[in-house]
Amino acid sequence: MELFSSSNINFDALRRKAFNFRWAEVEDGVIPLTAADPDFPVAPEIIGAITDYLSDGYLSYTPKLGMPQLRKAIAEDLCSRKNEGVTEDLVLPVDSAARGMYIIAGAVLEPGDEAIVMDPVDYLFKNSVMTAGGVPVYYPVSPDKEIDFEDLEDYITPKTRMFCLCNPHNPLGKVYSEKTLEKLLDVCEKHGLWIMNDEIWSDMILGEKPFVSINSLGGEKNKKTLSVYGFSKAYGLAGLRVGCIYCRDREVFDRLVDASGVLTTAGGVSSLSQVAALAAITKARYWSEAFTDHLRGNARYAVKRLSAMPGIKAYMPDATYIMWLDVRDTGLSSQQFTDFMQEKVKLALVPGSEKMFGPGAEGCVRMCLATGREVLTEGLDRLEKGLEMLRRGE
Amino acid sequence: MELFSSSNINFDALRRKAFNFRWAEVEDGVIPLTAADPDFPVAPEIIGAITDYLSDGYLSYTPKLGMPQLRKAIAEDLCSRKNEGVTEDLVLPVDSAARGMYIIAGAVLEPGDEAIVMDPVDYLFKNSVMTAGGVPVYYPVSPDKEIDFEDLEDYITPKTRMFCLCNPHNPLGKVYSEKTLEKLLDVCEKHGLWIMNDEIWSDMILGEKPFVSINSLGGEKNKKTLSVYGFSKAYGLAGLRVGCIYCRDREVFDRLVDASGVLTTAGGVSSLSQVAALAAITKARYWSEAFTDHLRGNARYAVKRLSAMPGIKAYMPDATYIMWLDVRDTGLSSQQFTDFMQEKVKLALVPGSEKMFGPGAEGCVRMCLATGREVLTEGLDRLEKGLEMLRRGE
Repeated sequence: MELFSSSNINFDALRRKAFNFRWAEVEDGVIPLTAADPDFPVAPEIIGAITDYLSDGYLSYTPKLGMPQLRKAIAEDLCSRKNEGVTEDLVLPVDSAARGMYIIAGAVLEPGDEAIVMDPVDYLFKNSVMTAGGVPVYYPVSPDKEIDFEDLEDYITPKTRMFCLCNPHNPLGKVYSEKTLEKLLDVCEKHGLWIMNDEIWSDMILGEKPFVSINSLGGEKNKKTLSVYGFSKAYGLAGLRVGCIYCRDREVFDRLVDASGVLTTAGGVSSLSQVAALAAITKARYWSEAFTDHLRGNARYAVKRLSAMPGIKAYMPDATYIMWLDVRDTGLSSQQFTDFMQEKVKLALVPGSEKMFGPGAEGCVRMCLATGREVLTEGLDRLEKGLEMLRRGE
Repeated sequence: MELFSSSNINFDALRRKAFNFRWAEVEDGVIPLTAADPDFPVAPEIIGAITDYLSDGYLSYTPKLGMPQLRKAIAEDLCSRKNEGVTEDLVLPVDSAARGMYIIAGAVLEPGDEAIVMDPVDYLFKNSVMTAGGVPVYYPVSPDKEIDFEDLEDYITPKTRMFCLCNPHNPLGKVYSEKTLEKLLDVCEKHGLWIMNDEIWSDMILGEKPFVSINSLGGEKNKKTLSVYGFSKAYGLAGLRVGCIYCRDREVFDRLVDASGVLTTAGGVSSLSQVAALAAITKARYWSEAFTDHLRGNARYAVKRLSAMPGIKAYMPDATYIMWLDVRDTGLSSQQFTDFMQEKVKLALVPGSEKMFGPGAEGCVRMCLATGREVLTEGLDRLEKGLEMLRRGE
């Protein structure tokens, strides 16, 4: 049985266990192409590593800064695959990439400070800035135009303290060229800005354009770059709540540690989640690569199908396993469109609402591809049928 | 084999896995009676429940407010054993009791607000208040005198917003009478104060004095009581990072939820930790009760041994599995005493430092009892020998 064949999906388990707008939260019969969480079980090596850790029955306190073997494995992985040049002593495991973003914003922003947030982008950027008392300033991006930061300085004021980079970009699925990232670094250096650099999608590269980490452009340039990575997207560990933050400067790292609460027991990552993340990096790369291959096929298939559907504009993402569909030609708002599809053809999608992605998301919807080909095909069939019903005014 | 016999301790596992000043962090040969974390493996039912959850390989997102079956089990347990009258919809699982304290302080304190913190008490009270921008005001407590809150109003100013209750008290090991808690509620109601009510030690009752939860004194009186409970002390799950906060008022609960970050993926508890906590409550009470019986025996034995040691004043704790030893008669400071014992007789204890317990802790040290009788005996032998060396000026 192939790892990512439809027959490897356990729908009973998903209906019991998959929350966050997914199988366990939708009405019976609805296909949820919603939250970016795989429909496939995780690599067996991850389950094996957790089981091994459990075998002696001890669930004691772990080291405050995380298990050394995990910090080392993360640093080695970031260096060997993405040339990030980070050292293990500057890697801090945290309980989700999302928490990492909040820690970063909390560590560097003072109330009233402005942070530039792309629009659209995942709502965690805006929320992390606002929770720290900061003010998000939207920088418009669009799939129609290369993101090149040429006009970035127009958005910088004396109060600007941080730029929030989502690379690869969720929901647009874009990766940035080296030249673009150099430009960003130059602008941020000129204005003394921190960079919150979210790379949670950096393993899922679907197109020809390679992923370039901003950290690979040199340590000195990245003294104010604060990065986030996680294990939910590439390894299916969303429920375990484990990710990490890392940087290139010791003093900055100490600020992150202080802000994280790990020096008390208020912060930290479950021992089993750390064990799972370690197994993911050291034993389950083959799984993540096969998963990416599967998703590349899913994305190509979806683009082909979607481009034949009137009312929808779709494109092949460079990365991620989500697609960003422009549905403005249907005449419906994002919310109306997703409500219609959910009600009429039992297909759940994520509306491009201001709350989820910012004001620039209106008119778009997000579709997740992390399922078997059969489910995806059925989902696209339903979308097609829904569009037909819409045209007929049903 | 008895559950809590010395032969059931796996020292190899502890040396690999038990951090936070315990076996994996001390020099070889040192006995760590330090952090309050059991030397025994957890109940096999907990391992079984985690293994069951793992069997299908899905580690998907869990519900934002926590697994409903866990919230229900916690509410039922708090009601049936402690008469707390809390309902499942007002229980929020959080990733450690410590995090719960930070969430509570963050939800109700504004910068500059004062919160009354007992002295001595676990440092998490002070730290949670300060992280929220609040100002801790110390209320002195002592093992020599019943804590009765008769002079509590002397510590209340127009800026006071919260009283922090640790019941049972860490490190003093005291429980409060119903009359005392009524008095506290009256004073707090009169001045409109929130109560942060930490009950993480409420399962470990060693003496004759019963544990009374402040929540058992009636819902109306407890509209501003915000409680914390956890699974580290009674079930040995410190490494899994799972606890809960709960209250008696819907509006107040919503404030806690907002402050917790669980509505985004920034907050929450690992699925496996939730499964473990559920198994602890529903299947491992027998284990926790047997553990408490074992600890009661350890405490009685330790009191007997310690009362024969010149230079040390010890007493039987009402609750917890820690003992608070007054070592002022040795002429050493807390830190000097613990340094001496660690160096001379390879016994690690927790110094009563201002950082760990507040200024009123000076002259005392904390000793953990959560081990087998053999280790405890060896620890007390070493303490005795250390005191003898001290007297001889070695």
